[in-house]
Amino acid sequence: MNLKEMVSSPGYWLRGDGPEAMIVFSSRIRLARNLKEFVFPPWAQSSLLKSVAEKLLKAVKKAVYFKNAYYIEIGKLSPLERDFLLERHLISQEFNKGGEERFLVVEKKEILSLMINEEDHLRLQTIFSGLQLRETWDLINKVDDALEENIDYAFSSQWGYLTACPTNTGTGLRASCMLHLPALVISGKINELLKEISKLGLVARGLYGEGTEAQGDFFQISNQVTLGLTEPQIVDNVERIVREVVNQERRMREILLKRNRVQMEDEVGRAYGILTHAHLMNTRTAMNLLSRLRLGVDLNLLPKIETALLNELLFLVAPAHIQIREGKTLAPLFRDELRAKILREKLNESSKR
Amino acid sequence: MNLKEMVSSPGYWLRGDGPEAMIVFSSRIRLARNLKEFVFPPWAQSSLLKSVAEKLLKAVKKAVYFKNAYYIEIGKLSPLERDFLLERHLISQEFNKGGEERFLVVEKKEILSLMINEEDHLRLQTIFSGLQLRETWDLINKVDDALEENIDYAFSSQWGYLTACPTNTGTGLRASCMLHLPALVISGKINELLKEISKLGLVARGLYGEGTEAQGDFFQISNQVTLGLTEPQIVDNVERIVREVVNQERRMREILLKRNRVQMEDEVGRAYGILTHAHLMNTRTAMNLLSRLRLGVDLNLLPKIETALLNELLFLVAPAHIQIREGKTLAPLFRDELRAKILREKLNESSKR
Repeated sequence: MNLKEMVSSPGYWLRGDGPEAMIVFSSRIRLARNLKEFVFPPWAQSSLLKSVAEKLLKAVKKAVYFKNAYYIEIGKLSPLERDFLLERHLISQEFNKGGEERFLVVEKKEILSLMINEEDHLRLQTIFSGLQLRETWDLINKVDDALEENIDYAFSSQWGYLTACPTNTGTGLRASCMLHLPALVISGKINELLKEISKLGLVARGLYGEGTEAQGDFFQISNQVTLGLTEPQIVDNVERIVREVVNQERRMREILLKRNRVQMEDEVGRAYGILTHAHLMNTRTAMNLLSRLRLGVDLNLLPKIETALLNELLFLVAPAHIQIREGKTLAPLFRDELRAKILREKLNESSKR
Repeated sequence: MNLKEMVSSPGYWLRGDGPEAMIVFSSRIRLARNLKEFVFPPWAQSSLLKSVAEKLLKAVKKAVYFKNAYYIEIGKLSPLERDFLLERHLISQEFNKGGEERFLVVEKKEILSLMINEEDHLRLQTIFSGLQLRETWDLINKVDDALEENIDYAFSSQWGYLTACPTNTGTGLRASCMLHLPALVISGKINELLKEISKLGLVARGLYGEGTEAQGDFFQISNQVTLGLTEPQIVDNVERIVREVVNQERRMREILLKRNRVQMEDEVGRAYGILTHAHLMNTRTAMNLLSRLRLGVDLNLLPKIETALLNELLFLVAPAHIQIREGKTLAPLFRDELRAKILREKLNESSKR
């Protein structure tokens, strides 16, 4: 498989055709599963994990869902290639450390993927565009069932699915949405909101999941609790709260437009002007300006830009994406130069359409 | 006379058709003169200054050079109108304080003007585009001669022309050039240069003369000494040193382009992007961005923009210009909004040509 190909063919979930796709970047569900009678990865020896991987890969290859997929040996990837997969939300921070017994399987639309021998033997993931956690759940549930036909999962009738970390035990399900909340950030309301969310049993994280900080006003909101509720209950609960956050973001956008229209026009206008004319740009600045651009387009303060392009740019400007695209590692200054060039070209192209 | 008309018809010296006009914004000479047998303004009573003004206005009206001129009573202007004339380099900080006995006469191309009852009875000024102090001197010399036909100047065969402040005594001549020196500022060489200049008997000031600071990398360089040299000697001396400064600025631009081309492209690109897309902008930011724009155009890092427009914009964004253009005083936020609008419109218009 060729990572360079992936750069120019964004995952289907980036098409921005889901409900509320301008504010809800993506809906994602992952399931944690382990093989019965095999020690869980954190305590298992390498040889055991190898046979786990063998077993799982065999089952995965049988499932219709992974007929058209990349099979990637994490141990054979360079750090840059792993960074690329992390940026793409296909692997976790943990997987990014590498490891011989670890495998990633990605169906080519990138809607469906799985990691073998992460913290658990199997981590299954689906990502959809916009706010459609229920649909995301329906798919992953089917895939899970299909795999289960050939795998014996570690399951307790009392506890449900058993996992390496007790926080995942039960459903093994984490449902999350990536939200773009610039108005709540600009108005300073975001911290209050994130506190409220945690009281409701949800947790907010940065762009690349656990332990990462928010970039470009993107926040990942997910369930904390995996036990004592059915999967549809968890999914509906997250969806309901995300919908409320979306409403708050929308209301705040209206208030900002009403009270500070010129300031908003100025912020998004400058962002557009800089993105289309800069010749050097670091990742952080790019993310912040792309956030303003996205906001400006959504509020009709800027010329129309396709949601798919707004989504794609968030990935194209990431450091590993830039380097994989060029086919080599690059010093930060050269990355900054290429990042600015990509932004200028893509946005100028778009404005000519 | 209507100041609003002046906003939309920039002075001829702003056309940018003089030699070295991209770096040497303007060449300016002023002569200080006083009437024989009249107390000099700082010590004179109002009634005396009124008869001085009467005498001088009569002589001025006879001179062919002021046939097509605005005659302006400073005492009748609002503070905003005086600010406007200051921004336009037609009056001094001193004149901006107002005063009943004070008059400004401006020939309509704004190449030639005079102030009556500033620090001296008469301050005569000519401004040309680019580096052409000799031509500037030739004109003001003729005008001075023409006026002298009908005025008895205070003149001592030992000291030359007598003035209120001894620093002007002798020739009463101040020759200055307004220079755009962004590369010397960016490279940090400017302070060293300004020190050297002062050793050569010249002085560097900000955009609006004595006591003002540099804005937009513009520096006014003029002679300190008015005594003991002939007028052509003073003029040639300033011109020679200014030419050397221009050469240094050019060399530094070449060095920056060679060593930091991408950074330069980035700086001027961002400036252009912000100027063409912002919706709020204060004067200081506008001046700094216009400075980068001017540099970028001169170095062919940006699309061609007429020098006349680059010059005009430096005036159009000034606070009093914006308000006179609108026909009313405006709070800073509204000025910032209009300033951004003017910049967007003028530059977008230019890019379509």
